[in-house]
Amino acid sequence: MSDSKKLAIIATKGSLDWGYPPFILASTAAALGYEVEVFFTFYGLQLLKKKMDLQVSSLGNPGMPMPMPVPVLLQTLPGMQRMMTVMMKQKMKAKGVASLEDLRELCMEAEVRMIACQMTVDLFEMDTGEFIDGVEYAGAAAFFEFAGEADICLFI
Amino acid sequence: MSDSKKLAIIATKGSLDWGYPPFILASTAAALGYEVEVFFTFYGLQLLKKKMDLQVSSLGNPGMPMPMPVPVLLQTLPGMQRMMTVMMKQKMKAKGVASLEDLRELCMEAEVRMIACQMTVDLFEMDTGEFIDGVEYAGAAAFFEFAGEADICLFI
Amino acid sequence: MSDSKKLAIIATKGSLDWGYPPFILASTAAALGYEVEVFFTFYGLQLLKKKMDLQVSSLGNPGMPMPMPVPVLLQTLPGMQRMMTVMMKQKMKAKGVASLEDLRELCMEAEVRMIACQMTVDLFEMDTGEFIDGVEYAGAAAFFEFAGEADICLFI
Repeated sequence: MSDSKKLAIIATKGSLDWGYPPFILASTAAALGYEVEVFFTFYGLQLLKKKMDLQVSSLGNPGMPMPMPVPVLLQTLPGMQRMMTVMMKQKMKAKGVASLEDLRELCMEAEVRMIACQMTVDLFEMDTGEFIDGVEYAGAAAFFEFAGEADICLFI
Repeated sequence: MSDSKKLAIIATKGSLDWGYPPFILASTAAALGYEVEVFFTFYGLQLLKKKMDLQVSSLGNPGMPMPMPVPVLLQTLPGMQRMMTVMMKQKMKAKGVASLEDLRELCMEAEVRMIACQMTVDLFEMDTGEFIDGVEYAGAAAFFEFAGEADICLFI
Repeated sequence: MSDSKKLAIIATKGSLDWGYPPFILASTAAALGYEVEVFFTFYGLQLLKKKMDLQVSSLGNPGMPMPMPVPVLLQTLPGMQRMMTVMMKQKMKAKGVASLEDLRELCMEAEVRMIACQMTVDLFEMDTGEFIDGVEYAGAAAFFEFAGEADICLFI
């Protein structure tokens, strides 16, 4: 395995949309024979919860395609974020896009190493009992051991 | 060309401000003799439209320099996003910063390869007839062929 | 030094939370013997101010852990951003997480090179007298000289 290509990912976002890139890239690379490690830190730790309850927000993201234009003020109203989350999930299902849970499972099966940032876990007082099995805990220094040898290293 | 340096970019944002980094870095690298590929995915596909109607939002971005402090609630009012977009465009023009369209054109002339993520095009049901000429369509796996050999790979 | 590992970072965000990754990664890498350069551009220039007055925003970031759920509309009210900033700072202090200023100082002591993007400084008409000592000024092209040779290059 030591001469296979290596992909290192730092996953820092915890929303429904930004949860996809780490798992899509990790599973794709693993399928291509890459050795992959993902370091989950900051809001990215949300991606390790067994029950991911991720949402999507259009606030601050004018590039998000909308079925119809929605004024920013309306986007702040109660229920709007939840509604947009439901709509995006439905669209993904209709288009045959795998769920985040499925993609994550695919990564686990492909032996993608998943590492939770111990410092952020402590800072946010996260309950690691809510995390999926197989997660390792380490700091940034440990991650550099792999990243420093990686062919591709991405901060997502 | 095979021994020139290589830059791979994954462009995922579709706002006026975050549209700049991919095109600035790609055109700069190309001018330095790099071979460059940009993979447009998620909201980054907006950057491929002939008529880019990108906007800038200060919501969720307290680091944005403002001519004067504007309370968050005011920033959500109708017309505010449009107004800030106009102001940023005017400032850029006054400072002699090239428009996104010009920078993109520069990239095309420098033979930067622009690849649209087929999966996201399908998911967002984007009309590829609105895209500029010369765009290629591929998946993440195809992009890894280039990225895996690149000297620099950035997720923007 | 020429055979030590190299880390290149492009720091583009200017909020309290997103100010951490560049300084944590830079100082960690430097401690591991890496040669490190950070190119501050766009909103990331805020990280160079002597007096950093960075704030954190939950808008557009549904992945942020909250002590209790706060409706999006409430998050836009006057004082909320300031309150969340104070709360995050207090939590970090209680958990023994170093301040951004301390981490930046650590980077300077470890000879991390800090480069401000001249174009963005001009565009935002930033007062470089407000910046810390030791900052260099250059463009993207100059940064590629280092980044093109780096083992890890991250866009944050």
